[in-house]
Amino acid sequence: MLDSIPSLARLVAELGKFPGIGKKTATRLAFFLLRQSTSEAQALAEAILELKTRVGYCSVCFNITESDPCPLCTDAGRDERILCVVEDPQDLIAIERSRSFRGRYHVLHGALSPLDGIGPEDLKVAELLARLRDSPVEEVLIATNFTVEGEATALYLARLIHPLGIRVSRPAHGIPMGSDLEYVDEATVVRAVEGRREI
Amino acid sequence: MLDSIPSLARLVAELGKFPGIGKKTATRLAFFLLRQSTSEAQALAEAILELKTRVGYCSVCFNITESDPCPLCTDAGRDERILCVVEDPQDLIAIERSRSFRGRYHVLHGALSPLDGIGPEDLKVAELLARLRDSPVEEVLIATNFTVEGEATALYLARLIHPLGIRVSRPAHGIPMGSDLEYVDEATVVRAVEGRREI
Repeated sequence: MLDSIPSLARLVAELGKFPGIGKKTATRLAFFLLRQSTSEAQALAEAILELKTRVGYCSVCFNITESDPCPLCTDAGRDERILCVVEDPQDLIAIERSRSFRGRYHVLHGALSPLDGIGPEDLKVAELLARLRDSPVEEVLIATNFTVEGEATALYLARLIHPLGIRVSRPAHGIPMGSDLEYVDEATVVRAVEGRREI
Repeated sequence: MLDSIPSLARLVAELGKFPGIGKKTATRLAFFLLRQSTSEAQALAEAILELKTRVGYCSVCFNITESDPCPLCTDAGRDERILCVVEDPQDLIAIERSRSFRGRYHVLHGALSPLDGIGPEDLKVAELLARLRDSPVEEVLIATNFTVEGEATALYLARLIHPLGIRVSRPAHGIPMGSDLEYVDEATVVRAVEGRREI
């Protein structure tokens, strides 16, 4: 039946390319668009095209931005002496949302993963090192994910950065806020006890 | 952070209008599009615009179609004597997929729902009656959903169609294929036993 309406079949196929959206959900979304007014559908189509036209990468920190350098790199109110390294722009957004960091950023666009063939040359590693040379940076906070790939990337970067005489740190491990100790995994409890703080 | 990238914020807002897609999923989809090539994003935007330009409603059965009358109405191989009434184009697709029906269709575009202020004048009811007068239709299969609204709509239509001397039917109730009797609801078991067939 969908085959007899090629433009509907085509949209279902396009929406089905999104991660986590199967054929059923794609069909549901397409039918929703069909019931929307033309101007509403146009607004969505334009937003998609505009995103690709306007958003690029900052030539300094490689975060996504509409202006180059990005607002985070040009904000004079941020601390030049501490640089936070993240895997993806989404991670940067999570840290910004927490309002816990007021330094600069550097986005790697991934993590080392030999199994997937991702080496340092596929990430913004050379750009990071070039940035650190002759810079006011005193500390690099490596906020890659706490996965095997993220940890390996952190260790790899630390080894490269230490010779530059710059301190390297990682966010603390511990019990997540609001947790019931009973349900926290053992490894996290070990780290939390080791890192205990006097109150 | 999203606020500093207006085109990204705008796309997240647009994607968030889809039913069942919250802000988190919308953000994930927008970042996926950001990683796609411009031509892939364009393909999606064009598919959306094309859908709204090309797809309309058949003036005979009110199913969605790119040509008017639609292929189902013009197909000479289908039986003119039986007409299946459904609430939505999606229901029509479900019946077509089952390959169990070879007659014509009529799409109501909803069901009666006094609480939501939906009366017969909001549905393609007058169009259905006009179609049935002086037509070769001998039986109307009312395949509205088996919900309160769908059942009420079926009863309402049956009362209007009977005086025209046309038979009215509903799809059979019974145990769904592959079901474990233990888990089938009581009302369905009652209908299945009442409607038992000799084998």
